[in-house]
Amino acid sequence: MTAPTSRSPLATEQLIASLTLEEKASLLSGHDFWHTTAIERDGVSVPSMMLTDGPHGLRKQLAAGDHLGLASSVPATCFPTASALGSTWDPELLTRVGAALGLETRAADVSVILGPGANIKRDPRCGRNFEYLSEDPVLSGDLAAALIAGIQSQGVGTSLKHFAVNNQESDRMRVSADVDERPLREIYLASFERAVTKADPWTVMCAYNKVNGVYASQKRFLLTQVLREEWGWDGLVVSDWGAVRDRVAALEAGLDLEMPASDGRTDAAVVAAVRAGTLDEAHVDAAVRNVLRLVDRTADAVATPATVDVAAHHALAREAAAASAVLLRNEPVDGAPLLPLQPASSANGADGAGVVAIGEFARTPRYQGAGSSLVTPTQLDDALGALEAALGAPVPFAPGFTIPEGPDSALDGDALLAEAVALAEGAGTVLAFLGLPAVDESEGYDRTTISLPAAQLRVLEAVAAVNPRVVVVLSNGGAVSVSEWQQHAPAILESWLGGQAGASGAVDVLTGAVSPSGKLAETLPVRLQDVPAYGSFPGELGHVTYGEGLFVGYRWYDARDVAVAHPFGFGLSYTTFAIDGVTASVTGSGAEARVAVSATVTNTGDRAGAEVVQVYVSDPAAVVTRPERELKAFAKVALEPGEARTVTFDLDSRALAFWHPALHRWTVEGGEFVVSVGTSSRDLAASVSLDVVGEDVSAPLTEMSTLAELLADPVAEPEVRPMTADMDPALLSMADDMPAIVLADFGMTPLTHVGLADLIERSNAARG
Amino acid sequence: MTAPTSRSPLATEQLIASLTLEEKASLLSGHDFWHTTAIERDGVSVPSMMLTDGPHGLRKQLAAGDHLGLASSVPATCFPTASALGSTWDPELLTRVGAALGLETRAADVSVILGPGANIKRDPRCGRNFEYLSEDPVLSGDLAAALIAGIQSQGVGTSLKHFAVNNQESDRMRVSADVDERPLREIYLASFERAVTKADPWTVMCAYNKVNGVYASQKRFLLTQVLREEWGWDGLVVSDWGAVRDRVAALEAGLDLEMPASDGRTDAAVVAAVRAGTLDEAHVDAAVRNVLRLVDRTADAVATPATVDVAAHHALAREAAAASAVLLRNEPVDGAPLLPLQPASSANGADGAGVVAIGEFARTPRYQGAGSSLVTPTQLDDALGALEAALGAPVPFAPGFTIPEGPDSALDGDALLAEAVALAEGAGTVLAFLGLPAVDESEGYDRTTISLPAAQLRVLEAVAAVNPRVVVVLSNGGAVSVSEWQQHAPAILESWLGGQAGASGAVDVLTGAVSPSGKLAETLPVRLQDVPAYGSFPGELGHVTYGEGLFVGYRWYDARDVAVAHPFGFGLSYTTFAIDGVTASVTGSGAEARVAVSATVTNTGDRAGAEVVQVYVSDPAAVVTRPERELKAFAKVALEPGEARTVTFDLDSRALAFWHPALHRWTVEGGEFVVSVGTSSRDLAASVSLDVVGEDVSAPLTEMSTLAELLADPVAEPEVRPMTADMDPALLSMADDMPAIVLADFGMTPLTHVGLADLIERSNAARG
Repeated sequence: MTAPTSRSPLATEQLIASLTLEEKASLLSGHDFWHTTAIERDGVSVPSMMLTDGPHGLRKQLAAGDHLGLASSVPATCFPTASALGSTWDPELLTRVGAALGLETRAADVSVILGPGANIKRDPRCGRNFEYLSEDPVLSGDLAAALIAGIQSQGVGTSLKHFAVNNQESDRMRVSADVDERPLREIYLASFERAVTKADPWTVMCAYNKVNGVYASQKRFLLTQVLREEWGWDGLVVSDWGAVRDRVAALEAGLDLEMPASDGRTDAAVVAAVRAGTLDEAHVDAAVRNVLRLVDRTADAVATPATVDVAAHHALAREAAAASAVLLRNEPVDGAPLLPLQPASSANGADGAGVVAIGEFARTPRYQGAGSSLVTPTQLDDALGALEAALGAPVPFAPGFTIPEGPDSALDGDALLAEAVALAEGAGTVLAFLGLPAVDESEGYDRTTISLPAAQLRVLEAVAAVNPRVVVVLSNGGAVSVSEWQQHAPAILESWLGGQAGASGAVDVLTGAVSPSGKLAETLPVRLQDVPAYGSFPGELGHVTYGEGLFVGYRWYDARDVAVAHPFGFGLSYTTFAIDGVTASVTGSGAEARVAVSATVTNTGDRAGAEVVQVYVSDPAAVVTRPERELKAFAKVALEPGEARTVTFDLDSRALAFWHPALHRWTVEGGEFVVSVGTSSRDLAASVSLDVVGEDVSAPLTEMSTLAELLADPVAEPEVRPMTADMDPALLSMADDMPAIVLADFGMTPLTHVGLADLIERSNAARG
Repeated sequence: MTAPTSRSPLATEQLIASLTLEEKASLLSGHDFWHTTAIERDGVSVPSMMLTDGPHGLRKQLAAGDHLGLASSVPATCFPTASALGSTWDPELLTRVGAALGLETRAADVSVILGPGANIKRDPRCGRNFEYLSEDPVLSGDLAAALIAGIQSQGVGTSLKHFAVNNQESDRMRVSADVDERPLREIYLASFERAVTKADPWTVMCAYNKVNGVYASQKRFLLTQVLREEWGWDGLVVSDWGAVRDRVAALEAGLDLEMPASDGRTDAAVVAAVRAGTLDEAHVDAAVRNVLRLVDRTADAVATPATVDVAAHHALAREAAAASAVLLRNEPVDGAPLLPLQPASSANGADGAGVVAIGEFARTPRYQGAGSSLVTPTQLDDALGALEAALGAPVPFAPGFTIPEGPDSALDGDALLAEAVALAEGAGTVLAFLGLPAVDESEGYDRTTISLPAAQLRVLEAVAAVNPRVVVVLSNGGAVSVSEWQQHAPAILESWLGGQAGASGAVDVLTGAVSPSGKLAETLPVRLQDVPAYGSFPGELGHVTYGEGLFVGYRWYDARDVAVAHPFGFGLSYTTFAIDGVTASVTGSGAEARVAVSATVTNTGDRAGAEVVQVYVSDPAAVVTRPERELKAFAKVALEPGEARTVTFDLDSRALAFWHPALHRWTVEGGEFVVSVGTSSRDLAASVSLDVVGEDVSAPLTEMSTLAELLADPVAEPEVRPMTADMDPALLSMADDMPAIVLADFGMTPLTHVGLADLIERSNAARG
């Protein structure tokens, strides 16, 4: 790639100065559903750019689109959805997937692909979770950054979305996500922050919803203060399609480009506001500057012809799908686990039958979600075909159940059940392809349950009753309960929504061509009632309260010690690994602290495989409540049998910090920290205790400082201590929390009002 | 009692007019720690009033008090604490206790006793839970009302406290309780509302803490809007002692009387503000009016000599203690439950030994909590003495453990343990008196655990290992875990902090003189991690977020189906009861709806006893999230063996309503409601489904109305329906939540911008 053409800053300013106010305003909204406005006149040429949906494949809509922009699109590689990509825990792989996405974007003359998504999976019921990466901001942010880096390596832009706190589909265009400052910073914004500061997406897309009462499209705190002033980002903010309610307020808040076209209505509003003196034209110029910058950044790429090797991209999609499949369970049956499938000769049951497939999803793959991310794939693998190709033999099949809207929806359920049971009886191994119907998962609405459809569970139970050798292969974007039925399935492979090669990728894992290395990017709960936001998701009457605060995902289950079906970070392999030699040491202090961590991971089994080494940090005692442990770094390590590798991590102070809700900044508090290395939030191989030198976060004394705070102050302590001499422990405990002014009100010497004011002055003077 | 002397309204206004501004201001703060300011001059006589602590006994401090007002007080009957009284579920009994408290108040020339407390037990760790009645607002409010009615029947005032949202002691003088509107109204204020509107307390005490960022002492919303304007209350608001930070702001908010004395500082601030024109003198006059009204209301009572029958009050305290003890467990051992204790001849073990007592609490009773409610009792029963009196024989005793600060703290733990085990070995029945040390429970600080001290559990386990016939008798104010140790105790009697006759009341239950009838006023959780506010209690850095929202106490456990040790409302008896013949019917609609409920309860055992019939209401489908079920009424019914009684309840519409967070008012939504009658939140004898005619709560159409809302509108529906014709189910689900203005932006006919505005106008015109 050539570097993008760079218009000089001077040329940009000259161009802006040469545009009329009307022309400038016109650049700040779409020309149509997918294109920005062009200006072509004497001496001025600003080309139009096309922006199209992502994030796991290009959705370049055909010309005659519907009004919601959801009509058919030109074929493109449908890579695994984010729920699958998140489970790879593999930034290197995601950068390669991103590069392929970027190339397809370029080849289609598209300037910006709208993705990736970095919203946190607050609740498994969110209908769009298949477009999001994780419940954890470090994993989500790092993987989003990897995708961005890959895509933008091709000279086209990304749009990191949906900024911010868009964690549900219900009432998404009106609801206010009401969230406290710490979870906002430490969870919801942190995911975006990591992606923005690591990978510099050229655009960021604002969310539809309100955040603490203000539309994200109009929230200066988000679009300017946090994104540009704090994070130092200099890209373009684009609205989600139709997210602008008040164009002038949005412009002032930092929203540069409104999409789609508004038929000139909002451009006119911008012009009128400038003319009326209620909008500073500098806001218009700043937004135009960001539009021109994006034009410049993407100009070369879209001008350069590119061709896509469709077969190579399909192979990459298959590799990614295989890497994302999470082996949840692989219990021995008759003394050996069911997976990987054994060669036909040894896998047979007593009657000589081999592998059979049950479940409509085996022939009608469920591979992506609905809504703006719906891709028209270049080809589409199905599990039956992939299995037959891999096993070199026909695989008997019975659909077992119909998928709503699927091809067999008119067939009789009992007959399908009986057929499946008959097929299962005497089979060597039953592969049951279960999952969520497509209609259950889409942009635009949420699920109300995490259960699989009852008809599928009925088939599973009946099949398991006649043949204990059942492997369940799941296709679903949002997490589903496995606790409800896993007693019927000695082996479970979660293949997510794996894209157009999802079926062949899953079969690669089933046959052992690839050892499973996917890890859960979200906790699988035992029951819906256990999820953190149960009772508050998706809110009511225009508000959703994030009452669980920081305790999202594993932070909730770990803090409350709630049993889970499978913990965050978990996934089995066909080989085994050991982690040892864990070390951790700290250098520097406060905001300059760094923590070096190393661990050695060894493949202790007899197959090649990959393990994800996960680094968690705990702060056992702090002035604020902190999660039990938090993921701060990870590395996926591929190892041959017997091979060992030492991985190192260099954590900066953010791995130790919390967002101080009174100081409104990241803060490293001194004291003990514990660094743990393991293979899930609940499988920790070793922990190392560190003594960290923190910042001084003690507040200056005021008349509302408590007795305890006075006693902790070196100036105040000797003067105040005597008054505690005749207090018994209970009274002292009670007085500890009493503000100095109240003690003075009560006449407790030496805290007269005059004496207190003087003491505060002297103490704070001594602090300098 | 004679009715309180009533100064005529005219005379009051004349008196106010005759006072100088300085005199008026002086009436609005204390003269000293416990007295209001008097004015005695030519033509004017405003007497001083004494206000002293409650709420379960008069704490009239001796003259030479300490500065925190915690020094010794004159003897008074120490009735059971609120944690015990709450467990009686018996308003009639509490009214009698209240009358006794009121008489003692009068007899001591005190005008106002500071109580009862109506704060909700949000978390078992709250250090002052022993002063509060329940986790449920109906139970808390009704019992507080009963106490108020009893006390004020004696012509002295109560002070309903701590208004509001004071649900923890940690940082209580600074912390902001941040709570959403629905839990504020439906849980925290509802408890006060019920007490205020049912029993008209003559004073209400504001809390120390902030509510949503503003000190309760300065929050007009609480002190004027809710208390006076909405609830129609006309009493006096007094500050908690030292709760006023800004006297002028507090006065404007509705705080009448600041306590204690401020040495004239705040009076001067009030005068200065009026003189400076920054405070309307009408606020001063209004507060003076409330002070004078209280003077008038209490004048007769304190002028009338009264004598207290100390022995009768002790007997009442004993009756209340017995009624509050909750029998949590009474499993058979050797074929029969351990309680009630059998006559000595049959209770003996093989070696002929009888009942023995273990645990320091048997001789050193734990009967009240620390802080402002600490009463100097008129006499004090202990369990050993009460047992020996009841059984007519010596009861061998071993302390087993020391209580911190107790008489045996220097003794060796192992020796005490060995002595206890030796005593238990061969005993007929072991009564183990366990509980929380006094230092664990006080105003001013919270617990960090719900476990019993490890030393006590060690003794219990060792004793149970040598003798399975163990009865644990608990003394504690806040709830403790029983799940951690109940396998060692076939019988458990929770006697709470039962006041000066708590020990004899508990022994009355142990011996069977009284059949236990106490019921849990709060859920006993299995583990601390299960409690709703785990992770958010008691907050940090000046804020505590009530993230669990409405789901306090059983509302949490029931909504999430979390296992509990014992549910809200639970308590065993020595007899058995059956509830049948449950009926429920609704009359009227909306805010005028009433529900009549009846049920027949029968004593099906062979002993006299009392059951609490509990009425719960559920709203299975609503526009807002509603708890699984909520207590709406209850009745305690005493029955002889074989006796049956039909109880009826007349519920008003509040039993059906929720607080509508958009309309900001109570709302009855139409549809199905379920009325259940049972003996705990999880033991429901029968449920009746009702069809309730609700209010029309649909909002007028706006451009932000969604497609689904348009389709529900009779005017809009026929015009909008056609655009949905070619949408598949997934697309329709997605479009359902899209606002009309966004659909118009996207050009979806017929929702042009002009057409939409017209449609909205016509629709809303049709609503009238």
